[in-house]
Order: sequence, then C-alpha cells, then structure tokens
Amino acid sequence: MTIEELVDAPCTWFIDHAPSEIAISSRIRLARNIEGIPFPAHAEAKQRASIREHTLEMLKDSSHFEGGSFFRVDELTTLQKSLLYERSLISKDLAEESNQSGLAVSPDLRDVVMVNEEDHLRLQVVRPGLSLEDIWEEISAVDDEMEEILEIAYSDRFGYLTCCPTNTGTGMRAGVMLHLPGLVLMEEIRPVLRGLGKLGLAVRGSGGEGSDADGFLYQISNQITLGRSEKSILKDIQEVVSELVQHEQNARLRLEESKPAALRDRVGRALGILQHAWILSSKEALDLLAIIRLGLSLDLLELNQAHEVEQLMVEVRPAHLQKLAVKELSAEQRDIFRAEWVRSKLAELKKGRKL
Amino acid sequence: MTIEELVDAPCTWFIDHAPSEIAISSRIRLARNIEGIPFPAHAEAKQRASIREHTLEMLKDSSHFEGGSFFRVDELTTLQKSLLYERSLISKDLAEESNQSGLAVSPDLRDVVMVNEEDHLRLQVVRPGLSLEDIWEEISAVDDEMEEILEIAYSDRFGYLTCCPTNTGTGMRAGVMLHLPGLVLMEEIRPVLRGLGKLGLAVRGSGGEGSDADGFLYQISNQITLGRSEKSILKDIQEVVSELVQHEQNARLRLEESKPAALRDRVGRALGILQHAWILSSKEALDLLAIIRLGLSLDLLELNQAHEVEQLMVEVRPAHLQKLAVKELSAEQRDIFRAEWVRSKLAELKKGRKL
Repeated sequence: MTIEELVDAPCTWFIDHAPSEIAISSRIRLARNIEGIPFPAHAEAKQRASIREHTLEMLKDSSHFEGGSFFRVDELTTLQKSLLYERSLISKDLAEESNQSGLAVSPDLRDVVMVNEEDHLRLQVVRPGLSLEDIWEEISAVDDEMEEILEIAYSDRFGYLTCCPTNTGTGMRAGVMLHLPGLVLMEEIRPVLRGLGKLGLAVRGSGGEGSDADGFLYQISNQITLGRSEKSILKDIQEVVSELVQHEQNARLRLEESKPAALRDRVGRALGILQHAWILSSKEALDLLAIIRLGLSLDLLELNQAHEVEQLMVEVRPAHLQKLAVKELSAEQRDIFRAEWVRSKLAELKKGRKL
Repeated sequence: MTIEELVDAPCTWFIDHAPSEIAISSRIRLARNIEGIPFPAHAEAKQRASIREHTLEMLKDSSHFEGGSFFRVDELTTLQKSLLYERSLISKDLAEESNQSGLAVSPDLRDVVMVNEEDHLRLQVVRPGLSLEDIWEEISAVDDEMEEILEIAYSDRFGYLTCCPTNTGTGMRAGVMLHLPGLVLMEEIRPVLRGLGKLGLAVRGSGGEGSDADGFLYQISNQITLGRSEKSILKDIQEVVSELVQHEQNARLRLEESKPAALRDRVGRALGILQHAWILSSKEALDLLAIIRLGLSLDLLELNQAHEVEQLMVEVRPAHLQKLAVKELSAEQRDIFRAEWVRSKLAELKKGRKL
C-alpha cells in the first residue's frame, strides 16, 4: 500500500460503529526495545537508521505484517505525517520529529509498529468499540512473533526495559476513547475525571498527551505498567470504562429529562451553525459535530446517513481538510473551506430534521 | 382606542421602512410644566392628580388629540405598561413609577403626551426614518395648541422651565435611532461615538437612558437645550446623523469587501441559530435579528417578507412576547417560547436563502 492509499483508506476504528456508541475505540500499545542498543534519544543517527532498516526488514517477512506497508517517516511530507497522526497511526511526537524513524502497518491496517519513537519499537492495535480483550489476544500474538524475530530487551527483575521508567514492566498502555457529552453537559465530568485519577487511570484529550478534549472525546488509559500482569490491568480498565459508559448513558437520560430545552437548544444550535457558518475552526467543528452525534444518539435528529457524521469528524481535522482541498491553504482559508465542506456535506444528509 | 387596541396596533415608527434603512426612526420631545405648581417630584399626590385630570380633559378637546386615547397609567397592568414602554409610548421611568401619571395618544398614534413624568408634560412625536424637520413642524403645532389651552411655565430669561436644569431653555430633546452593525463589526464604532460626545450629542442604547445597544441600535440626541434655537439644534443633529449614515453605508461596503467570509459567517450563524435555537433571550434575539437585517440590506439573504423581521424585533421583547404567549410565563419559559416563536416565524419566511 502506498502512503497515498494508506491516508485515503477509511478510518475504520473511528467510523465502524453507531453514533450512539459511547466507547468509540480501544487501543493497546506495547513499548519494546532492541537489546544492547541505546534508546532512540541516546542513540546515534547511524544506530537509529540501522535499527529502522533491520526492524522494517524483519517485519516485512513476519506473518502479521507480510504484504503490509512500510515507510521511512522522515521521507514523508509534513502533510502526510500530519494525516498519519490524525488517523492515530503515528504519535504527535513522531509527526514532528521523525529522524530515522519508521512505520510498519499490517495489510488490514490494524497492527502498527512505530520505529524509533521514544522507544525502538512501539507496537499498537486499535479497534472500534470497547474491545480490550480482543485487542490483547491480537497484540500478544504480534508481540510473540516480534520477540521471535528481534532481540527484545527484557529484565527478569523489571520486565520489559523502556526509555521512560513509567513504561517499564509490561511496557503496555491500554486506553479507550470515550464520547462523554452527557457528563460534560450535566457538569458532572470533573468529579468523574478526578475519580479516575485516584484509580490510577490517566485521562487525556482525543489527540493524545497534552491535547484538549475536543468534541467531548476523552482517552482513558492506565498509568501503572509495573508489578501487575497485563490481563489484570486490562480487566481493571474494562471494568471502569463499562461503568463510565453506564454513567454517560445515565447522564444523557437525565439531560433529556431535566433540561429538555437546554439539550434541544444545544443540538439545534450546533446544527444551525454547521449548516450556515462560513468560518469554522477544527476545534469548533469537532465540538459541534460531537453535539450532532449526541443529538442522533438521543433521537433528536434524523440524518440520511449517520455514519457520515463520524466521517466528517475525521475530515474536518486540519491535515485531512488540507488533503480534501487539493491545493495548499492558509489557516484562514482552511477555516473557510472547512465551513464550506461541512455545509455541503450536511446539505446532502439533511432529511427529516426534528430540530 | 382601548389600551388593548393601542398595544396591538402596528409599531409603524419601527416597521414602516426597508430593512436597509440605517436611520430607523426620529423623535422629538418637549418638556413643559404648568405654571405655579411644583414639579411632579415635589408636588403632592393631590396636586399631581389634579394636573393629570385637568390636562387630559383639555387635550381631549384639542384638535390634535380629539378622538385619541387617554389613560391613567397607574390604573394599567404591569404588562400593559411594559408594552407601552417597549413601543416607546412611555418612558422606562413612567412604566416603573406611575403614581398619578397619565398618557394621551393622538388618533393617528403619532403624538403622545406623558403627564407627570419628570415634568408635568412631556410631548413627543416619533416617525420612521430621518425626519426631524417634519417632526418639528408637527410637534410645534401641537405645542402651540397646548400653550393656548394650558398655562405653561416660561421665563423670558431662561425659556421653558423644567424640573431638571439640563432641559431648561427649549425643553427639547431630539434624537434619531440608528442601526449601526457595519461600524460595530468593522470595530469603528468607539471613535465615532467619542466624536459625537465632543459635538455635544449623547449616545444611548435603543431602550433610552442607561440601556444597552441591543441589536446594534443607537439613539443619538442633543445634550444642549439652552442658548440656541430649536431649528439650529435640529439642523446640527440632522447633519451629523446624515454623516453617520454615510459612515455606516461605507463601513458596510468595506465589511463586504475586506471580510466577505467573516460577514457571511456572522449572517449565516445568526440565521442558523434563529432557525434552530430552543432558548433565546431578548437581547440575543434582537442582536441576531439585527444581523439578519444587515444581511438583507447587503443582499446576502432573501426572505419572503423582509418587513416581518422588523416585526419580530418588536415581538421578541419581553412584554410583547408575554402578550403573544397569552398565559403567564416565567423568564425561563419566556426564553423557550421566544425561540419557538422565532423558529416558526422564520420557517414561514424562508425562501431563496443565499446562506
């Protein structure tokens, strides 16, 4: 698959579910390093290059990645890197600083290995919905094969060795992306997030570390990687997230009951603005589309193809929008083009509007 | 005319012009007092009552007010007083504090006398557009007749005597209500307003003294009443306002040229929100309708009956809305009913929308 085909493929992990779904996607990543070689930040360019070539070569022949796509990230354009980031195929760090880094993507686009990010290898698997157990089965198999073909740094005492000590042990970070407009609009999100912190879980915006919660999207993930088995960590997250999903469902019902006009007002205004605005920032578009998603899930809105809203939530991101525009756009032109794109898409979808 | 008929009659001074009109209405009022009787604030209740009965009686027989409507304001309901205020038939002060005050309205609804406001008599004439000279002709005739039938306090040295010294002399305040969204959106309104102050003109919101400039509506009026003839004061205002109208036209053109997307965005969002909101405050509704008015004047929007927008700008005010709702509404219910009213009205008007 060429890079063009890769960034053109549908974001299945994001759009393969109903808009009413609260758990949008699940993700597990494993941090691994090659034995006897300094971590990427301390390695010389030559060492990093050699790790990359060797790893990508070995993965090409592995059963999971055979027939997949392999890239030297520093050879990609800025736009291509941003597109990969917006699709969660690479991290923000890698998109910005990609010296001697690499990327391997399995033919079904589900398994991804970043080479020379913070660690030599970062293996990740993303799937729609709440599916940490299934992902664990899948990623374990890939990890087992990687360990067969590469010399992975492992200590009997500490477990997998990683650049940052917070990853040492299992090297695993598992997270779920949740859509929580009900809790936000009922003003109950803060205590919930505080509670998650006490349970040893981290909460971040949809774009990963340091990003805002655009579109009411939150990533919940484990902070502890050491001293417990992967399965027990995953079980905890799965349980907490299931409870959170209940909370959100509950908040949506109470929102509908206690503030019916406020809710319709919010959904109606979102629709009105998306249908009529001429300037839309990425953040505003995501926030408003997320409200539309809420309106669809509460049956306040009807659209011909609800999935198109999820698709729009990918398309309005800066790099994707730049790709759709074909020609280079300034930030200002992009906001105008984004509004135009959303207006025309929503005009196609408009059906029996209830608002 | 009964009070019900009066508050039901169309607000001709507000709606009898095209939405592109910048000068919405002109108004002159004359402060007059009855000789030998303390000003209302210092008079006893009995004296005020006697002034009121006598004045209304005399006006009933005058040529200008014969066949008109006459009310004891303190006998009206709070809602009726608020309706009169929203129609500029009485002042905010009189609506709130109406002991022994009265109101006379000529049959054509153009000439109004408030009795026992700050002064014994406040005569006012309002007309659509910029028409101070015509109003002066009209109000002078009414004033002349009043002086024939009532003993008006006048000093050869100071002119007409009034309760507040700022009104002494001519007793005249003349003002024009202007719709200035272009200057506001081009961020040029502040220096313009400062300049008006230096010319001895006062600027206030549309609701009179102390009110905000809801809906980009500004009232420009004279501050000086003493030492100059009425005609020379009016000539000055007329000239300044004509220049302001030019400025506003100019600002609208530059807005269209320099920020075409920002302008369409503003107008589009106003339309989108008005068509889809479920909760609307009076201020937000007025501001958004004023933007629609701007959109109509710049030909960015098409509606079946543009006049209906002007009508809506009266209907969304709290007391008028309360009247439309028939049953008593809380402030919260009023905001919901207002949104519903505007949605249904705009649905009727929708035609070839350009946004």
